[in-house]
Amino acid sequence: MKREFRTLAEPDTVAETIADLDLGGGSETVSLQDAHGRVLAERVAAAIDVPGFDRAAMDGYAVQASDTVGAGERDPVVLEHAGEVHAGEEPAVAVDSGSCVEISTGAVIPDGADSVVVVERTTTADDHVEIHTAVAPGENIMFAGTDIAAGSRALGAGTRLTPREIGLLSALGIESVPVRSFPRVGIISTGDELVPPGEDLNSARGEIYDVNTTTIAAGVESAGGEAVVYPHVGDDFEAMERVLREAADDCDLVLSSGSTSASAVDVIYRVIEERGELLLHGAAIKPGKPMLVGRIDATAATDSSAYIGLPGYPVSAMTVFRIFVAPAIRQAAGRSEPATATVSGTMAVEQRHDVGRRRLLSVGLVADGDGEWLVYPVDKGSGATTSLADADGVVQIEATTDYLSAGEAVEVSLFSPDVQPPALLAVGEDDPLFSTLLDELSTPRYLPIGTRDGLRRLRDGVPDVAVVAGPTTRDVAAADVGGWSREWGLVVPEGNPAGVDSLATLVDSELRFSNRHRQSGLRTSLETALEVVADSRGISLTDLTEEINGFGETTAGVESPARRVADGRADVGLGLRATAEKLGLGFVSCGEQRVRLLGNPDRLDKPAVETLATAVDTVADRLSLAGYQFEMDS
Amino acid sequence: MKREFRTLAEPDTVAETIADLDLGGGSETVSLQDAHGRVLAERVAAAIDVPGFDRAAMDGYAVQASDTVGAGERDPVVLEHAGEVHAGEEPAVAVDSGSCVEISTGAVIPDGADSVVVVERTTTADDHVEIHTAVAPGENIMFAGTDIAAGSRALGAGTRLTPREIGLLSALGIESVPVRSFPRVGIISTGDELVPPGEDLNSARGEIYDVNTTTIAAGVESAGGEAVVYPHVGDDFEAMERVLREAADDCDLVLSSGSTSASAVDVIYRVIEERGELLLHGAAIKPGKPMLVGRIDATAATDSSAYIGLPGYPVSAMTVFRIFVAPAIRQAAGRSEPATATVSGTMAVEQRHDVGRRRLLSVGLVADGDGEWLVYPVDKGSGATTSLADADGVVQIEATTDYLSAGEAVEVSLFSPDVQPPALLAVGEDDPLFSTLLDELSTPRYLPIGTRDGLRRLRDGVPDVAVVAGPTTRDVAAADVGGWSREWGLVVPEGNPAGVDSLATLVDSELRFSNRHRQSGLRTSLETALEVVADSRGISLTDLTEEINGFGETTAGVESPARRVADGRADVGLGLRATAEKLGLGFVSCGEQRVRLLGNPDRLDKPAVETLATAVDTVADRLSLAGYQFEMDS
Repeated sequence: MKREFRTLAEPDTVAETIADLDLGGGSETVSLQDAHGRVLAERVAAAIDVPGFDRAAMDGYAVQASDTVGAGERDPVVLEHAGEVHAGEEPAVAVDSGSCVEISTGAVIPDGADSVVVVERTTTADDHVEIHTAVAPGENIMFAGTDIAAGSRALGAGTRLTPREIGLLSALGIESVPVRSFPRVGIISTGDELVPPGEDLNSARGEIYDVNTTTIAAGVESAGGEAVVYPHVGDDFEAMERVLREAADDCDLVLSSGSTSASAVDVIYRVIEERGELLLHGAAIKPGKPMLVGRIDATAATDSSAYIGLPGYPVSAMTVFRIFVAPAIRQAAGRSEPATATVSGTMAVEQRHDVGRRRLLSVGLVADGDGEWLVYPVDKGSGATTSLADADGVVQIEATTDYLSAGEAVEVSLFSPDVQPPALLAVGEDDPLFSTLLDELSTPRYLPIGTRDGLRRLRDGVPDVAVVAGPTTRDVAAADVGGWSREWGLVVPEGNPAGVDSLATLVDSELRFSNRHRQSGLRTSLETALEVVADSRGISLTDLTEEINGFGETTAGVESPARRVADGRADVGLGLRATAEKLGLGFVSCGEQRVRLLGNPDRLDKPAVETLATAVDTVADRLSLAGYQFEMDS
Repeated sequence: MKREFRTLAEPDTVAETIADLDLGGGSETVSLQDAHGRVLAERVAAAIDVPGFDRAAMDGYAVQASDTVGAGERDPVVLEHAGEVHAGEEPAVAVDSGSCVEISTGAVIPDGADSVVVVERTTTADDHVEIHTAVAPGENIMFAGTDIAAGSRALGAGTRLTPREIGLLSALGIESVPVRSFPRVGIISTGDELVPPGEDLNSARGEIYDVNTTTIAAGVESAGGEAVVYPHVGDDFEAMERVLREAADDCDLVLSSGSTSASAVDVIYRVIEERGELLLHGAAIKPGKPMLVGRIDATAATDSSAYIGLPGYPVSAMTVFRIFVAPAIRQAAGRSEPATATVSGTMAVEQRHDVGRRRLLSVGLVADGDGEWLVYPVDKGSGATTSLADADGVVQIEATTDYLSAGEAVEVSLFSPDVQPPALLAVGEDDPLFSTLLDELSTPRYLPIGTRDGLRRLRDGVPDVAVVAGPTTRDVAAADVGGWSREWGLVVPEGNPAGVDSLATLVDSELRFSNRHRQSGLRTSLETALEVVADSRGISLTDLTEEINGFGETTAGVESPARRVADGRADVGLGLRATAEKLGLGFVSCGEQRVRLLGNPDRLDKPAVETLATAVDTVADRLSLAGYQFEMDS
């Protein structure tokens, strides 16, 4: 259904094609106050000496050094006190042989003087000064130009202006500087199903919020560009052409993305072919196959703009932006890649790869017990729209590589230089108390993938902590980081209109049930309890659950079944007392289950794990969620 | 002459006192477009499922999985084509047993369907579709909430909003977020001798440009604060009180600095004592002894502002800001210290230290042959106003340490996280061609300290390259990176009004001469030539040079003597033909001298050294400075 390109460009060709695009690179003049972080467009030479005069380096007396020959503590030389000079004053008196002038640090050395005796080595009496030490010519004087000599090289073109460079420019009296212009990058989001954040969403129509516009805009800023966001357009040719050409008029580079619909891609493709030049269509890279690279004619007919079409899925768009687009923007902005933008690590698990296309694998990071980065793939499947917060960056796997083995060294390109990998990686059961407890930590990451998968990943040595709830069979080496009990059961509408009083009601009624998935400890406890019902009736668990309307349909989060009850899509949901109370729903208790935090044995000394353990002891019981108990554990 | 504090606070006490100051820490709401780089003030939970509906993960046909049981390539199941649904559309038809609906990636799964068969495993014929594979319930469907389930933790308070977090917030439909306010930091520069950059400087009055205001403002921004610059004030009590209280009204923190005059410190001290609270005066740290920490009452009487007084010298102010103030601003802004803000290295040379006060040593960095950071002290003496561009950061030396040995491991706090240490460190002779050649490199550092000191530092293994000119006696192991010859001689006013024709004229006239310092290769060549004159007259070199008016006074840069000739402060200057031509002055040639670039043998593979060597071969001779020759060298 989608356009299939006959030949896919190799990734290196894509990178070269993008590098050859003209993304501006002009310059502008800004005041020093606005220059912080900018990149100098031209060499700056010192036009003046700094300091501009011979300057006292200490408080004391300006003298002629020859007058001090032989002076000592017991044998002072006595000089006439001829006057004084302070910083910011023009000396009113000169120093002759036999006289001296009191001088402050920073003041101009008076004519005739060639050195300064520090005040501590002098005593004053009436209008005379006793000098207790000999000084050499030049002593305690900072000569004109000592800091920076007029004519010398101060800063080169391409220098990033940090506070110290701004200080240097200030010292030279420079109040405005030529800096590289920000490349202007237009961002166009397309697709009938996308809605700008803040507006109402109609899920029945399959609408989703537009993620790429704000994400790519922030990425453009991170790379040193200026983002210009254009109004969202649908899949209409004329509207698309108008906004693409408007962006081409005003920008050095136009980026589009956002639609997964074939028609939008077709429309953009046609506009570029009719009103520009298509340099490349389709890249032999995953994700990125539908990439477009070209130029769009501006309406002014005098200029054109570079164009890059990004994949529609946000993680894919971000990944391709990071690897192919950000370097070109940095180049145009005159910025070098920050050292922080790339980190070295080792694969935590094996990652298989279909040979043939280079892969841009989105990955998460976690520090191991030695503080080294472990790298794990983050892939919720090709349909995932976000997963953004779960990934830290990108690993490139060559087309000829068939797998990365666990322990293999890899380089991770962070999504942006300011990405902070998590201080704690917790995976496992979705638990509201644990989720709240994470507020005690800075930059935790919590993947609520269920108890079973949590244990599996802990066994693989990936997370710092696994959250485990309900009965488990798997035996994993782990340390106890704390725990609690939570009350689970059936969430029903307020007032329990159907009169649900036990699991038996669920089996015997036609009520629509909303369940949790098989990885969940709630589901395990539910099935364990249902086994008892099945046994009492002399039937199998499978036969029993087939009687429950909706037992096989699963939901994403711990609150999801309860939310389905709240909005009428279900009559009964599997859940927690805490969730029922939070959402103002009724609750039929089925029992308590233990929630345990199992620590990775290699990571117990990790500061975030220690913080978590302390938080369990000191904070958890004060959070007082309904149905939670701590006595037995902590 | 300056106020001496009776007791100096220990550095840890200073840090604690500053940490206890209230620097604001409020929050404000910003739109997502302005949220990049900000710090989230509150936890954000997901209010909606993402996606908000069960969504097709692939292009294909929505079916009931039970209809596909047994389907294969040779044995397809035939289903009725009941309609189609695209992304952004509400399904108009449901899927019954025996029928299917054509569906695009991202579209809503129609009622009745529980799975999607990918288009590649189907063929269409008239109004029927052949299904060539069996699918399981849920296959190729991304269920509602799979990315983010409603009710789950999305982002914690304190999270720095990078592009990926902005993407996550967009996915949740959030268009504005509560973020930590920037702490407002008022910056007041004091001192009668300071002039804002851009204005005229009267060096005769000892005026210098104000460096601290812009430098500290940029540092405040780097640390996550908002800098508010107040007009420069002199040392007048009432003006100072007015501006300090105005700043206290408007800011969370007021920083003053800039004056080296005792009176300004006294005035500030009085204002704080009368209109606020002095928490700490004087720190046992070098630099930083005159630090003040306190609070200033706002005029509104309802609020007060924190106050910190920084040392006046720019490097000292920057150093104290970096170690004591920036952490407090980051804390108030909710920012963690970037990992890039500190680097590990080893001392390149021994650094002695007077036991008793903690020392904040400003240092430069250079990568050694293995890419590890070597750390060398940058200290132009206590009188140095700038040196800013020559230093990269600060090493703390404890009060009880009497020296750091060469090779000792140290931690360097960079002046700001965006500081780029130099890619090449060159020291030695001040040469205009070399200075121009550095434009071919990114981030070089060139300390034109003269040939002699350059050789000494090369012997110590500090620089990558030493620039050496004229006759040298010191033998240092080094590699040849290239070189050239330059014509040196006497720079005279245009038209040579005094008729200078040789060095003999200089000796025999009363002309005022401007010399270079003893470290300079120009000076060595001059003295070698003067020896010949002295020999011919049968007198010593010392006796000869005493005849030259001004021989003993030295200047800072290679152009300095010529500039003195240009502005009439000297009649004859030691210099280069290139300088004379640049400044439009006359020139009396005394000969040629070789300039050699001596490479540190351990660093020849360093990319910047290789770039330099290439530039000498390919670029240098095209720069065509007057009096330069390349044939003999390259």
